[in-house]
Amino acid sequence: MEADIVLKNGLILTMDEGFNFHEKADLAIKDSKIIDISPQTKYKGKKTIEARGKLLMPGLINCHTHAAMAMMRGLADDMAFETWWHDFIFPIEKRLLDPDFIRVGAGLAAIEMIKSGTTTFNDMYFFEDVAAETCRQVGIRSYLGETVMSAETPDKKTPDEALKLIEEMKEKWRDDPIVHLTVAPHAPYSCDEAALKKSKQLSDRLDLPLHIHIAETAGEVEAFKATHGGSTPVEYLASTGFLSEKVIAVHCVHLSRHDIELLKKHDVKVAHCQESNMKLAVGSAPIVEIQNEGIVVGLGTDGAASNNNLDMFDEMDSAAKFHKATHADPTVMPAKTVVKMATRDGARLLGRSDLGSLAIGQTADVIIVGLNRPHLVPLYNIYSNLVYSAGGGDVDTAIINGKLIMENRKMLTVDEGEIIDRANHLAKKIEREVKHA
Amino acid sequence: MEADIVLKNGLILTMDEGFNFHEKADLAIKDSKIIDISPQTKYKGKKTIEARGKLLMPGLINCHTHAAMAMMRGLADDMAFETWWHDFIFPIEKRLLDPDFIRVGAGLAAIEMIKSGTTTFNDMYFFEDVAAETCRQVGIRSYLGETVMSAETPDKKTPDEALKLIEEMKEKWRDDPIVHLTVAPHAPYSCDEAALKKSKQLSDRLDLPLHIHIAETAGEVEAFKATHGGSTPVEYLASTGFLSEKVIAVHCVHLSRHDIELLKKHDVKVAHCQESNMKLAVGSAPIVEIQNEGIVVGLGTDGAASNNNLDMFDEMDSAAKFHKATHADPTVMPAKTVVKMATRDGARLLGRSDLGSLAIGQTADVIIVGLNRPHLVPLYNIYSNLVYSAGGGDVDTAIINGKLIMENRKMLTVDEGEIIDRANHLAKKIEREVKHA
Repeated sequence: MEADIVLKNGLILTMDEGFNFHEKADLAIKDSKIIDISPQTKYKGKKTIEARGKLLMPGLINCHTHAAMAMMRGLADDMAFETWWHDFIFPIEKRLLDPDFIRVGAGLAAIEMIKSGTTTFNDMYFFEDVAAETCRQVGIRSYLGETVMSAETPDKKTPDEALKLIEEMKEKWRDDPIVHLTVAPHAPYSCDEAALKKSKQLSDRLDLPLHIHIAETAGEVEAFKATHGGSTPVEYLASTGFLSEKVIAVHCVHLSRHDIELLKKHDVKVAHCQESNMKLAVGSAPIVEIQNEGIVVGLGTDGAASNNNLDMFDEMDSAAKFHKATHADPTVMPAKTVVKMATRDGARLLGRSDLGSLAIGQTADVIIVGLNRPHLVPLYNIYSNLVYSAGGGDVDTAIINGKLIMENRKMLTVDEGEIIDRANHLAKKIEREVKHA
Repeated sequence: MEADIVLKNGLILTMDEGFNFHEKADLAIKDSKIIDISPQTKYKGKKTIEARGKLLMPGLINCHTHAAMAMMRGLADDMAFETWWHDFIFPIEKRLLDPDFIRVGAGLAAIEMIKSGTTTFNDMYFFEDVAAETCRQVGIRSYLGETVMSAETPDKKTPDEALKLIEEMKEKWRDDPIVHLTVAPHAPYSCDEAALKKSKQLSDRLDLPLHIHIAETAGEVEAFKATHGGSTPVEYLASTGFLSEKVIAVHCVHLSRHDIELLKKHDVKVAHCQESNMKLAVGSAPIVEIQNEGIVVGLGTDGAASNNNLDMFDEMDSAAKFHKATHADPTVMPAKTVVKMATRDGARLLGRSDLGSLAIGQTADVIIVGLNRPHLVPLYNIYSNLVYSAGGGDVDTAIINGKLIMENRKMLTVDEGEIIDRANHLAKKIEREVKHA
């Protein structure tokens, strides 16, 4: 019996409900699906990959980023949030953001993500129609949300125009297996009531996730309360009927006890960006308390301008360690929970029960991690080694929707060197712009 | 004119006092020294390495670890400090630590460190005579301190015997360029007054660094005060004449204002282990406050049982981000400072003005970092990219004391696969022991 790809003799971390782990097994893929996981598969692959001593696991799911901001990696660090935003990021976006910027930036981010084990990412940015073409070509699974903002956006779209773009894209990519859409109102403070309401309506009508920043900084929450009769952003969104199981609430750093109860009540999902929160010094998100309520939490890198990479292994490590430190309790946020956040919980956040775990019938988004490396030896505990010891560079191979995208760290779909060259070229333009400003 | 090694056309981050950076230059090495840094060196190398588009920088200095504990990586995570220590680490050490354990564990750690850019490490552990042979063979620069403890040590040495071993090793390795010694009393709470005094005397007599854990946990400091008339560990050490410019004080998490003043007064150096502190949830070290006093602070990974890797790039990233978070200030602990801590300040901590920077006459401990990778593009700010974006896996090549130790990630001095096989074999024995216990 024939399969498209057979991965032989791997260690298989399924991340299924039972956390099943196979010491040595084969995994067979046909079309976009996993069709077998067994000690010796009966399937013959058109393509066979020997994975002896390597780990097969679900591809990681980056629950929040601004991919094309990879072009601003390292441009403005170690400065106040306001300086970072008003003097660097915002002016650059305003003056330079165009389809070419997105093509280059999203391409750079996409290959960076694949090379560090991410097979799905949830994006909020501009010119997402361009990002869609780029990500399709690279072969990464993308959830794309054109930013809805009441103020002028860098791509000069009104909220109605941004929403219209999403609706058009939803039509255009209707049958595409890896280009997916979201509705992405930027934040309660940057969208007026009409923009939030229309976003919610479109999300309902097209059955799309509703991706929004919530309560990233204390100042933002205080200012919101001052202009909304004392309501927190979460209380306000709850009162307007915005919250639902489709909402992906990003950051959630400054929440009240009541806010957490509201998120729970409406089955809102939370995207946690530990490294960005630390680097921008916005505060400590109450993720442990949120998880204790049974709320689903995924991990996100945020944009590379505030991280400064898109490596979900780094993100797992930081999340596991930071919450231990702030709770003065090393039992908090164990490695197994963190791997679940980066895989199965990320899939739940996107409403995808067919992703985030390896089992027969699941969609084949699979990565192969090399284990035979000094920093991953010994192997007493696979969760510990993935979270505390591994890095994105340990990912050898990536399969997305049943298609081999990277093998032995070589991108098979695009010319990595060409993308890097284009990024370096665009960076020179950005640098000149910063110097002039 | 002939050199041993010439590195051509690299970007050179000198980390010298002026933070000089060369966009494209050659670096020539003869014997153990850097003999030229210039745009086009006149030296011809017996060995030439093309470094176009790559970064040359000083090898990283890991200021505190327990190398052979690499064998306990991932063995016991996400548990209380006391459980971790009393139920896992201590019993394993007591029952299994022997010369073979050290040979395998230190070998594994040494290749892991080299493969992540560390060229010098400061160790405190047991059977350091065995570790010396191993590290010499691998070719990593080591500072080895046999642990002095008043209670029985896993290698059954009294304080006098541990100190005697160091004195013998100092004689044996007298002319060795890369095996160095320290005197390493474990901690004020685990060494009695006589052991501390004799350690200090030996450090003075042989002119060796004095490597000691100080104030890692709040409980340890409280218990110490209760039995020492209210004196903190630092106050006690100051009053007994122990503190000096040779002292490397590791952790320093729980210090009073007065403690910091005493460290400053005696020119004590501090080794900061951010990732271990987070993972064991021992508290937040006042490193910013310590640095504000002008005290030299280096970075250390601590042992792999509490990190769980020996990657100084991870350590830099975490240190830069964590202190921003705890100070609610993104300007704290900028990337440039953190790179200095991992290089030049680490060298100062060890009393080595010839290490930690690249300049003519400096000892040639040099690493080459590949930059042409998606997560390191664009390159606006080399410090940012090293701290926030790079990982140990980006290190291509390592030269230690003028000798090429790793080239294009291949170890040239030892068989990496053989070391890994031996570690996996020993791990099985450790696992059986844990199951029996």
